[in-house]
Amino acid sequence: MSLKAIVGATVIDGTGGKPVPDAVVLIENDRVRSVSPAADTVVPEQAEVIDAAGRYVIPGLMDANVHLFAGTVPDVLIEYAGRYAEFVEEAAQVTLRAGVTTVFDTWGPLRPTMTVRDAINRGETVGSRIYAGGNIIGLGGPLSPDFFSPGDVLAKETVDRINRQWEEGVGDDLLWLTPEQVRMRVRDYIERSGVDFIKYAGSGHKEMQFITFSEPTQRAIVEEGHRAGITVQAHTTTVESLRMEIEAGADLLQHGDVTGREAMPEETLKTIVDRVLPVAALVCTERYQAWVKENGGEILSIVHEKKDENDRRLIEAGARLLLTTDAFAWGPRVLDHPLLSKLLKSPDTPTQLGESHVYWLQGALERGMAPMEALLSATRYIAEAYHVADEVGTLEPGKRADLVILEADPLADVQNYTRIVDVIKDGAVVDRDALPLRPVLIEPSTTAA
Amino acid sequence: MSLKAIVGATVIDGTGGKPVPDAVVLIENDRVRSVSPAADTVVPEQAEVIDAAGRYVIPGLMDANVHLFAGTVPDVLIEYAGRYAEFVEEAAQVTLRAGVTTVFDTWGPLRPTMTVRDAINRGETVGSRIYAGGNIIGLGGPLSPDFFSPGDVLAKETVDRINRQWEEGVGDDLLWLTPEQVRMRVRDYIERSGVDFIKYAGSGHKEMQFITFSEPTQRAIVEEGHRAGITVQAHTTTVESLRMEIEAGADLLQHGDVTGREAMPEETLKTIVDRVLPVAALVCTERYQAWVKENGGEILSIVHEKKDENDRRLIEAGARLLLTTDAFAWGPRVLDHPLLSKLLKSPDTPTQLGESHVYWLQGALERGMAPMEALLSATRYIAEAYHVADEVGTLEPGKRADLVILEADPLADVQNYTRIVDVIKDGAVVDRDALPLRPVLIEPSTTAA
Amino acid sequence: MSLKAIVGATVIDGTGGKPVPDAVVLIENDRVRSVSPAADTVVPEQAEVIDAAGRYVIPGLMDANVHLFAGTVPDVLIEYAGRYAEFVEEAAQVTLRAGVTTVFDTWGPLRPTMTVRDAINRGETVGSRIYAGGNIIGLGGPLSPDFFSPGDVLAKETVDRINRQWEEGVGDDLLWLTPEQVRMRVRDYIERSGVDFIKYAGSGHKEMQFITFSEPTQRAIVEEGHRAGITVQAHTTTVESLRMEIEAGADLLQHGDVTGREAMPEETLKTIVDRVLPVAALVCTERYQAWVKENGGEILSIVHEKKDENDRRLIEAGARLLLTTDAFAWGPRVLDHPLLSKLLKSPDTPTQLGESHVYWLQGALERGMAPMEALLSATRYIAEAYHVADEVGTLEPGKRADLVILEADPLADVQNYTRIVDVIKDGAVVDRDALPLRPVLIEPSTTAA
Amino acid sequence: MSLKAIVGATVIDGTGGKPVPDAVVLIENDRVRSVSPAADTVVPEQAEVIDAAGRYVIPGLMDANVHLFAGTVPDVLIEYAGRYAEFVEEAAQVTLRAGVTTVFDTWGPLRPTMTVRDAINRGETVGSRIYAGGNIIGLGGPLSPDFFSPGDVLAKETVDRINRQWEEGVGDDLLWLTPEQVRMRVRDYIERSGVDFIKYAGSGHKEMQFITFSEPTQRAIVEEGHRAGITVQAHTTTVESLRMEIEAGADLLQHGDVTGREAMPEETLKTIVDRVLPVAALVCTERYQAWVKENGGEILSIVHEKKDENDRRLIEAGARLLLTTDAFAWGPRVLDHPLLSKLLKSPDTPTQLGESHVYWLQGALERGMAPMEALLSATRYIAEAYHVADEVGTLEPGKRADLVILEADPLADVQNYTRIVDVIKDGAVVDRDALPLRPVLIEPSTTAA
Repeated sequence: MSLKAIVGATVIDGTGGKPVPDAVVLIENDRVRSVSPAADTVVPEQAEVIDAAGRYVIPGLMDANVHLFAGTVPDVLIEYAGRYAEFVEEAAQVTLRAGVTTVFDTWGPLRPTMTVRDAINRGETVGSRIYAGGNIIGLGGPLSPDFFSPGDVLAKETVDRINRQWEEGVGDDLLWLTPEQVRMRVRDYIERSGVDFIKYAGSGHKEMQFITFSEPTQRAIVEEGHRAGITVQAHTTTVESLRMEIEAGADLLQHGDVTGREAMPEETLKTIVDRVLPVAALVCTERYQAWVKENGGEILSIVHEKKDENDRRLIEAGARLLLTTDAFAWGPRVLDHPLLSKLLKSPDTPTQLGESHVYWLQGALERGMAPMEALLSATRYIAEAYHVADEVGTLEPGKRADLVILEADPLADVQNYTRIVDVIKDGAVVDRDALPLRPVLIEPSTTAA
Repeated sequence: MSLKAIVGATVIDGTGGKPVPDAVVLIENDRVRSVSPAADTVVPEQAEVIDAAGRYVIPGLMDANVHLFAGTVPDVLIEYAGRYAEFVEEAAQVTLRAGVTTVFDTWGPLRPTMTVRDAINRGETVGSRIYAGGNIIGLGGPLSPDFFSPGDVLAKETVDRINRQWEEGVGDDLLWLTPEQVRMRVRDYIERSGVDFIKYAGSGHKEMQFITFSEPTQRAIVEEGHRAGITVQAHTTTVESLRMEIEAGADLLQHGDVTGREAMPEETLKTIVDRVLPVAALVCTERYQAWVKENGGEILSIVHEKKDENDRRLIEAGARLLLTTDAFAWGPRVLDHPLLSKLLKSPDTPTQLGESHVYWLQGALERGMAPMEALLSATRYIAEAYHVADEVGTLEPGKRADLVILEADPLADVQNYTRIVDVIKDGAVVDRDALPLRPVLIEPSTTAA
Repeated sequence: MSLKAIVGATVIDGTGGKPVPDAVVLIENDRVRSVSPAADTVVPEQAEVIDAAGRYVIPGLMDANVHLFAGTVPDVLIEYAGRYAEFVEEAAQVTLRAGVTTVFDTWGPLRPTMTVRDAINRGETVGSRIYAGGNIIGLGGPLSPDFFSPGDVLAKETVDRINRQWEEGVGDDLLWLTPEQVRMRVRDYIERSGVDFIKYAGSGHKEMQFITFSEPTQRAIVEEGHRAGITVQAHTTTVESLRMEIEAGADLLQHGDVTGREAMPEETLKTIVDRVLPVAALVCTERYQAWVKENGGEILSIVHEKKDENDRRLIEAGARLLLTTDAFAWGPRVLDHPLLSKLLKSPDTPTQLGESHVYWLQGALERGMAPMEALLSATRYIAEAYHVADEVGTLEPGKRADLVILEADPLADVQNYTRIVDVIKDGAVVDRDALPLRPVLIEPSTTAA
Repeated sequence: MSLKAIVGATVIDGTGGKPVPDAVVLIENDRVRSVSPAADTVVPEQAEVIDAAGRYVIPGLMDANVHLFAGTVPDVLIEYAGRYAEFVEEAAQVTLRAGVTTVFDTWGPLRPTMTVRDAINRGETVGSRIYAGGNIIGLGGPLSPDFFSPGDVLAKETVDRINRQWEEGVGDDLLWLTPEQVRMRVRDYIERSGVDFIKYAGSGHKEMQFITFSEPTQRAIVEEGHRAGITVQAHTTTVESLRMEIEAGADLLQHGDVTGREAMPEETLKTIVDRVLPVAALVCTERYQAWVKENGGEILSIVHEKKDENDRRLIEAGARLLLTTDAFAWGPRVLDHPLLSKLLKSPDTPTQLGESHVYWLQGALERGMAPMEALLSATRYIAEAYHVADEVGTLEPGKRADLVILEADPLADVQNYTRIVDVIKDGAVVDRDALPLRPVLIEPSTTAA
């Protein structure tokens, strides 16, 4: 049995309760044994004591929507065929290093992601805890028209081979089918894949593809998720696709703050608040919003303006927002790639793993969210929305001992989330300096940027 | 008062009743006064007698889906700006010459189409009777991504100016809106435009845009059409979009036989048959089907195969099919245009105004439809589906005197539909040799082809 | 006989001689009768006296390289088919209004340009005196790959019809031929076209098409020009194409300062200076150079840097530079066109007719040219280079009475070229306020910009 | 010492002399010791006797223009980065197996090609004898605009990394330079690279890039080749680029029969014949010519028609033609690639290594060449043109023992070139069944096609 005692710090335990100054966090093996004021606590003799006097302890941060390997540039996809797990691993180490101890991967190559998820869980490598959804049901792989279609430049064989690693039987051919046909495909996918949750396309990615599945089909997908005991979310981008997702019974509204060129209807907002539906919101900083307005082009700038308006209204109405970045793995090669460089070379880029979660928190504060609420959006609320609150999200007895020790109070200044002293995951102190263990794609970006 | 008597012909009156040999058709001004066996009829003395001994008289043919001016090539659209009515007029004369006395224009530039419709109705020019729907609600104009987006080649100003003539406030920006917002836009459109019916996009034209409007929005559109007393149809292309259209209450299923890569579900077929829902079906000849299979590419060839399977099943089940060609106006310039030539240079091209209706009839017979049923699909059924059976569709007292005199029996050989002796519209014999009066776009094709 | 006397002004006669204060310019009909100090001159009684006390008189300005109608956007080319002469006329009036009384059109639609040239010469309309070369021998029309190839968007018929108006038998098909075949085509072109000079492609416009015609072919083209008694110039863009043009005996080096990614070799520079070869140079302002360096992309920014280096060296070495703008006719429609807006929305745009000649003069001064030399570059040197110095270029007895009266000394401040009191062409005062008479394409730009 | 005696066969020794029936070829180690009638020959006792009674022996065939790895599809280039030598080796084994014992690689990745060349020469692997030229001086690599420019699909870094392996300092940036600058670059390239000959671009590959280097530059390149003691050839495609190449002193005219849309001028033809200039001609079969005429599009069909006309005239005039296929390595992946499949899926494809040389021979005979002359075009003439006749090309004492034993007389029927009994290279019998040793890219094609 291993015992650790973190002593002297102010603990913000993620339940929403008041910070406890001079508290003791007792960790037994990989679990929290207790969190209590020093005055009330006897630190067992055999415990390894971590002196955190003057510091702050928070639960490990979470991100409700990442893509550990998005890999949307063809050259990288081809050149590294067979090595995608290396990308996933690197990304999970970059997020862990930044204090994000749990991530929800909502679109990625299924097998490599699962391989890394399981290797981390078995302790064979280190990285953020991964919950994975595999493909977005109804969309294709990274070289399909949903993302980037390479036209006549690449052989169909090359393209198909890559896309299949994402699609796994629930790709965009589902859009041609009846509700019952889709139901059977989804059921089969859940059984075969071992995913932790499912995500389907309420809207598509293609031009004006605002609705993908009919209501009966959406209901069938949600039923299949629930039948398997996992949560269901949908990718939506317009007022109607959001409404349909809610009607269909989705557990979590993925970027539910994106409603296209129209702001969220009052009625939808009310439903979200009344039912306490978790909204994974793509909150950005003022600085990024200003950049998009200037550089985003006609449609994108309006969509971002409406999203921002929605975010402010949701926050004001007390809706339950989740920190969600949609961040993916990239480095200098992707940054300079003609397909993506315009998008990525923005200030406060909201899609860089390891950094963007702090922009999210900053943006939330700029839009009126209280600091404690922001912390909950990045911890407990996500755990609850994904139905994993028994394991993670707060510092309570019996939960996984995932936590971050900060130099200063994150509720006083959002930048303090970056002043990390230590990251502890499953009760073990992470050797942050060693991460990522084998830099492949992302890491050079830090130096190059 | 003008009186005409067509004597000696076998009359097939479009009601589905037996052909009447040696009948007399009495025409008073622009209406049918009576149709009766010669033995039972006294031909008034003052009547102008048209000797049709040995010939066959049928109601003027109808086409449930044409585009008098589709004009999808940018150079024609730009070069002829301000002159689109000339195209519409030429097209309506080419169809009239071919015995198609009534056409339903389901997507075209609103004002030019209305101008020609009204000029024909007022007798200021000659042409097929036009019922027009204007735009497809939810889709854009001919230079929008729904049809052909000219990218960076043309100025936005040029493109917008052209597209606006189609969109008229119910273009693809509707896809961003809530059901109520769409409802108000449709209501306003119907009031302003004077359209005879409306058509909305149940599916879109863009890649994988299989569902456009949610069910509540579709219902709102249908309600607005019915509120205004006009029929409503939807453009659909997949099993689910067809089902949604039916659920929403559409009066007529536009190319309802196109269900994508899946055949029509049995349940949908049953509903169609049970409710006698008119299916405007894109029936093609065997020869064309074979060509598409060879040349259509992966998706198109499957979609056509399924469509063909649907057509056979619909015919066998006794569903109510309507002759519908989706034909549009084109001539040599369009035929040789890089954007369209591959599509148009096919045998038995199903989309050439003035010719394709006969390919439809041939295709229907090849698929097992009885000759009389085929005639009804091209006359009475269409009139009933569009709620204009009081005026057209059969040769019965009080109806418009629109009819075609053929040299030989169309029920014996479908090619006899092309052996036209005379076309009479509104009681007047059409000077077919003079048509089109002012050839602009289509006509040269006959010579050039 | 008409007589005018401009009195009181300081006259800079374009010969390079000292400005003459308080001079009298006597104009008899359309010619200069004398230029002399007031003290030495008796103004004839019947002369109309123009009081120009305190003002400055210079010869009408000239531009060695314009495109009155370049029209490189497909929508304008198609929409205005048959009306190109209106564009040419408008452009010639915009230049005249700005004091540029003579322009050399080095690429344009032959017949419309000739029509306007002749109408101006006959006094049927007003405009800058035009000398025209028609096509660039060896290049295609505006919708050919040499300029902008519209790919599959437009019908071949449309494209060919437009291109032929430029190509006139000496298009890019010449590149496939032998020297003798090219010779015969050029000879025929000169005979048929009535051009005032010829210009051939020493380099092409296509990617890496740095050499078009072999040396024997270039010599054949030059010989044919000289055989017909007209001057010959070449479009060149690299060190070798420039050298070849000189070797072939070209009379005028069109944008001879553009030598690609390499600076002009010392030997070439020496030859140019020693032989007093006129270099039509694309001199730009510092401000524009800075913009290109920032926004021009990899190749263009280097090419401009080398051009600038060449300009400085040519000026320092005393080479004979000609004011040349390559300016063409455009207005707001072209400015906002996706094909051109990036290029045109620059500060001190060097290609706007009516404005850019002043940027040229400013740029020349910034690069060390003496003010008087700059004036000669815009007048006498051009006339001599084109072998029309008997007619225009200076204010000397017997020359065309083309002159500009300025409010202040252009040698003291280059901006004074824009402070125009009056423009006189062929002895007649131009009604500048009325120009352009019929604005079509360019004029709105002034307001819109 | 190893001794072999091939006995009983009719020997066609490649000198042009009469076939010798019942001859003995004595091979000592890797060289021919003697070729003589059996009647005149004593076969040494220790010689290994190869009984070839009734068979035919010819010199190993040669191909004057191949690309062992052209690899023009991006996915293959990226996926196999670092493994190009495997492609080269496979290709050299496929050609050897077909009896082509010597190939001249005129454009390929320098280092991998050299590596394989040297490994074969040292006997470390087996394959056709390779003489390599590396890059085409003045052109870029396979992902440059000269071949296929992948636009915005791939990162510049990826593209540059690949192209550099071809360009090696003599890429398309040479087109911007002066003759002396090009000279120094070529000199340096020859010294560094160890190429066996050089090839430069007389024409380019880009649209209308018919002339690349000026005459002085071409002379400089030729001089540098000769200075280094190696032969020089140019890639040309028009009448003028061919003429310039000849003027510049090229030793071998690479596809000198391709003169664009104009046939070869009589004067050029005369020069070629008079000076016995070797023309590497892209002779095709009638069947392929017919296919190109039908499917090649406007330009290509004319160019092929003129080429065919040139081939017939050259043959008739007795010009010295060389078998040249321009064939490159491809297999099923390339065959089905959208970038190439249209081109490669032709009958009698002239660009398939291992097969196309027989189509060449057949095409030559169809165009009137005598069978013996065709054999010389594939052997001695090539050796002489490349200045390697001391080593290869004929079966004469002292030459490399490269030969093919055929089942039947190749002069009687061109198909007999494919009826191979044995291939001997450097005196050793090739184990043809084992080739290619490690199939990578090409080989599957044989099965798949």
